[in-house]
Amino acid sequence: MKILLVGASGTLGTAVRTALADRGHDVITVGRTKGDVVCDITDPEAVAGLYGQVTGLDAVVCAAGDAVFKPLGELAAADFAASFRGKALSQIELVRQGARHLPPDGSFTLISGILTDEPIPAGAAASAVNGAVEAFVRAAAIELPPQRINAVSPTIVAESVAAYGAFFPGMEPVPAARVAQAYVRSVEGRQTGQVYRVG
Amino acid sequence: MKILLVGASGTLGTAVRTALADRGHDVITVGRTKGDVVCDITDPEAVAGLYGQVTGLDAVVCAAGDAVFKPLGELAAADFAASFRGKALSQIELVRQGARHLPPDGSFTLISGILTDEPIPAGAAASAVNGAVEAFVRAAAIELPPQRINAVSPTIVAESVAAYGAFFPGMEPVPAARVAQAYVRSVEGRQTGQVYRVG
Repeated sequence: MKILLVGASGTLGTAVRTALADRGHDVITVGRTKGDVVCDITDPEAVAGLYGQVTGLDAVVCAAGDAVFKPLGELAAADFAASFRGKALSQIELVRQGARHLPPDGSFTLISGILTDEPIPAGAAASAVNGAVEAFVRAAAIELPPQRINAVSPTIVAESVAAYGAFFPGMEPVPAARVAQAYVRSVEGRQTGQVYRVG
Repeated sequence: MKILLVGASGTLGTAVRTALADRGHDVITVGRTKGDVVCDITDPEAVAGLYGQVTGLDAVVCAAGDAVFKPLGELAAADFAASFRGKALSQIELVRQGARHLPPDGSFTLISGILTDEPIPAGAAASAVNGAVEAFVRAAAIELPPQRINAVSPTIVAESVAAYGAFFPGMEPVPAARVAQAYVRSVEGRQTGQVYRVG
């Protein structure tokens, strides 16, 4: 399959790229600053440009999403708005526009995260955004068929423990390669409307 | 208790007002066009004005939230953005600012809805927004204590069947007065981080 991978150069994206390539897929990488295509998916116009540029796609998978981490008392209104743009509206836009470009058996795989159900201090904006992504996936799954859509919801990935581990005390990290397998499952499987929790 | 009720003139808000007043509470009504205080909570500056104007509050409850209902293929990027502003960012703002104004035993009660988990056609934006609200409530509940926060998640209310019933085939409507009891439970109870599903 020809698969568009958004966030390909990140910790998780790198593992997803490897996993999909190992399965013989043709992976087109997208990043904000580097990749086969450079695109900031928080800009709907840029997403339109992306789909205009890359054709013949069978699947779109996303490993990119930015949310602001701050104690609740320090999160500004703009931080919440930026978080929704950075991880929810951006991924919704990939689906909204992408549905017109993918074939009937095409699929979308988005990224959410454990904070939807298991909050941490300073994670309120991230939790809200992840909750939006997961509920959107369940809802889009009843309107997109025969196209499919799932989300992958990892706990903290092992490769990010040095940077973010302090936020996740006692939460067992999962190797990015294991999370990447959930992307393979979503792309090659037949389920839709699922949230694949890895952790 | 002195309770700020946002969305007091709506179908659900009217029932919540009655239920809280029946319990002997002093209810301050807020609406976009009418009420003891007129305020558009989608504007953070207006929310600041609201909390500047009304003091001595023990609880804030919200029965107001606007999301755009359209088939997924017709929902524009602006519709999703408006839905997040209209039901998620608006309610988050009530909490974010309100936390500084309520006493330690104060509480917040937000509104989500059944579409978080049970989607309907044309409801993808509403689902996403409800998912955001519920995940935010779980997350804020670990940072706000001793203040509390819960969400009320109703199915379609009986009084709205004439207007919206066609969207909810086979889903049993619940009288607004029953949903209102979940607000009483949130305000007078001691739980936090709960999503009270009514339906």
